[in-house]
Amino acid sequence: LISKLPFTGTSIFAVMSALAKEHNAINLSQGFPDFPVSEELIKLVNSYMKKGLNQYAPMPGILPLREGISEMFETRYGVKYHPETEVTITAGATQGLFSIISAFIRPGDEVVVLEPAYDSYAPAVMLQGGMVKYARLQAPDYSINWDTFPALISGRTRMIIINSPHNPTGTIIKAKDLKKLDTLLKNRDILVLSDEVYEHLIFDGHTHESICRYPGLASRSLLVGSFGKTFHATGWKCGFVLAPPQLTAEFRKVHQFVVFAVNTPVQHAIAEYLRNPEHYKHLGRFYQEKRDLFLNLIKGSRFKAVPASGTYFQLLNYSKISDEKETAFAERLTREFKIASVPVSPFYHNQEDNKVLRFCFAKTTETLEKAAEILCRI
Amino acid sequence: LISKLPFTGTSIFAVMSALAKEHNAINLSQGFPDFPVSEELIKLVNSYMKKGLNQYAPMPGILPLREGISEMFETRYGVKYHPETEVTITAGATQGLFSIISAFIRPGDEVVVLEPAYDSYAPAVMLQGGMVKYARLQAPDYSINWDTFPALISGRTRMIIINSPHNPTGTIIKAKDLKKLDTLLKNRDILVLSDEVYEHLIFDGHTHESICRYPGLASRSLLVGSFGKTFHATGWKCGFVLAPPQLTAEFRKVHQFVVFAVNTPVQHAIAEYLRNPEHYKHLGRFYQEKRDLFLNLIKGSRFKAVPASGTYFQLLNYSKISDEKETAFAERLTREFKIASVPVSPFYHNQEDNKVLRFCFAKTTETLEKAAEILCRI
Ligand SMILES: CSCCC(=O)C(=O)O
Ligand SMILES: CSCCC(=O)C(=O)O
Repeated sequence: LISKLPFTGTSIFAVMSALAKEHNAINLSQGFPDFPVSEELIKLVNSYMKKGLNQYAPMPGILPLREGISEMFETRYGVKYHPETEVTITAGATQGLFSIISAFIRPGDEVVVLEPAYDSYAPAVMLQGGMVKYARLQAPDYSINWDTFPALISGRTRMIIINSPHNPTGTIIKAKDLKKLDTLLKNRDILVLSDEVYEHLIFDGHTHESICRYPGLASRSLLVGSFGKTFHATGWKCGFVLAPPQLTAEFRKVHQFVVFAVNTPVQHAIAEYLRNPEHYKHLGRFYQEKRDLFLNLIKGSRFKAVPASGTYFQLLNYSKISDEKETAFAERLTREFKIASVPVSPFYHNQEDNKVLRFCFAKTTETLEKAAEILCRI
Repeated sequence: LISKLPFTGTSIFAVMSALAKEHNAINLSQGFPDFPVSEELIKLVNSYMKKGLNQYAPMPGILPLREGISEMFETRYGVKYHPETEVTITAGATQGLFSIISAFIRPGDEVVVLEPAYDSYAPAVMLQGGMVKYARLQAPDYSINWDTFPALISGRTRMIIINSPHNPTGTIIKAKDLKKLDTLLKNRDILVLSDEVYEHLIFDGHTHESICRYPGLASRSLLVGSFGKTFHATGWKCGFVLAPPQLTAEFRKVHQFVVFAVNTPVQHAIAEYLRNPEHYKHLGRFYQEKRDLFLNLIKGSRFKAVPASGTYFQLLNYSKISDEKETAFAERLTREFKIASVPVSPFYHNQEDNKVLRFCFAKTTETLEKAAEILCRI
């Protein structure tokens, strides 16, 4: 058996969550909340199941949910996506990402990816016979070094993948970054995949710079969003892809054969729940409080942090504690100290190791207190 | 924009279901039941949501569901799949099919497909740069002509896709077919993808010949199953893939980046519901009664039928009524007579047109009576 992905192992998120379970550790590894989904939202799913809405949804998603997303984007960013031709519901953001890459990348195509990067981008590109070029974010603040881009782009470049708020670093793209990108891509036939699954989780008075607000970029972009992250229900697997009609049509050609459609009662429930902006308006503040609590609680520890500007992840540098490799250290913390995190080296193609672990703070105060208590002991 | 799938349009199932809705027609096109999901099963989903099981499931699926599938296969076919290493939960059977093809097909590989064929196989193969070779089922009974196979197989053949009970024809694979296939593949490095989503829906005293019962084949096979079809909940998007450890490992490398995991409360609910074999043991009889009712009700019509041996589809020949093309006739029936079906020509790569439409009889008696009343008028 010759593998199509010889260098790909099991996703680090699956590995660390399984290890956390095995060792009964506090799981701050994979990105998911440990507090409950809103009772109202659960009741809505139940009521739509009871109403009998349990068969295939329309392939692009139910129209009320596509309309709701369109309205949310109009409210938040002043940009109108057409529900019929520009919005598609996906079985989570990961399925959106994979299907976009499958739909547009051909053998020999090159894709530029910010590094460190979410672990699905590169394998998805390589599976289509594409090549990944890495744009390394710059220490110490993980900013984008636009000077490196001209050397990364060639006649074979088909797509640039950006991600803001950025997983795993928690940094955010600035208006000036998107202007640079816009200038860079002028007169070039290059698509942009903008992974914005943490669009609501942005802190310290910053606002989210969505690709949709930059017309020159939006016209060549596919934007990926996540209800799992927004409504604290990562296990429901519901996300979306926004793109101009021509790109959406091409995307749907693939999407329809990847999953055909997405869980029907979940779609109806979210469509109704989404109508009330109170359900997502305060997410930035909500998660900023969690970040602040977490950082305060570990002040006495020997971990070093630069506060995340978004996402629900905080990077912690442990070079004062150990010179073990990230993977070994993360594993040891899980086994011995019963606290699971994610090493950042798997987010680099060359396993670059900066003695940094990623901790998910989308947790109850109780969990964060317990976790911090452990971290202060290490 | 150069399309990767220039000859692929919107899935015929999406097209016909949308047309049915637009014209307020009885929808016997896409394959889904119109009667309710078991109340017990809905209650289970609700109870698991309320218990707080709303975050990411483990990547390969929750273990109790994988164990339940393993036990069901042991009960039904006397074959034991190992829950840890041989069973993976998918977001519906379609996602299983797509991910298998993506994981194993490379540019230049050839895949043999029985024709007429479910519409996702060929685009999934072509998206990976593979080539499809078609093994046309023989009129009038749509049996497999094994004599044509040697000419279809070459050194580049990587996979054969079989499907029983067969969509759209309703025919079933016999023991002698699988023995022929086994002999054919001896000493050849060819995988088998066995689409068995209708495994429980088999009529007239036949038993389902699952690939898993043929060790020589099972060791090179990936078997795809569907809870949507089995538990009347096509909108919940839950299915599975069974394969030997080495094939499962390779499959999961891709699966993890296609969707990562599947709806968590749905998995827990099905795991519990599946434990009781009464919940699937009588499905053959249940659907056979529907088929018989449907065929009896349209006896007075000018449509001609050979009774389906499995699936929930019945082909009807309309050559006594019209010489319109299938797509035109199916569209006209939807618009003018308010009854939607699926033309069979889109299941052929060359749009072969035999004046046959596919009708889904997974419907209430009331729906079937209304549908038959219309069909008798045409
Ligand atoms: C789909 S598993 C990954 C979840 C996540 O976004 C993360 O932990 O980075
Ligand atoms: C995923 S849509 C197709 C449903 C089905 O199995 C059919 O109608 O053939």
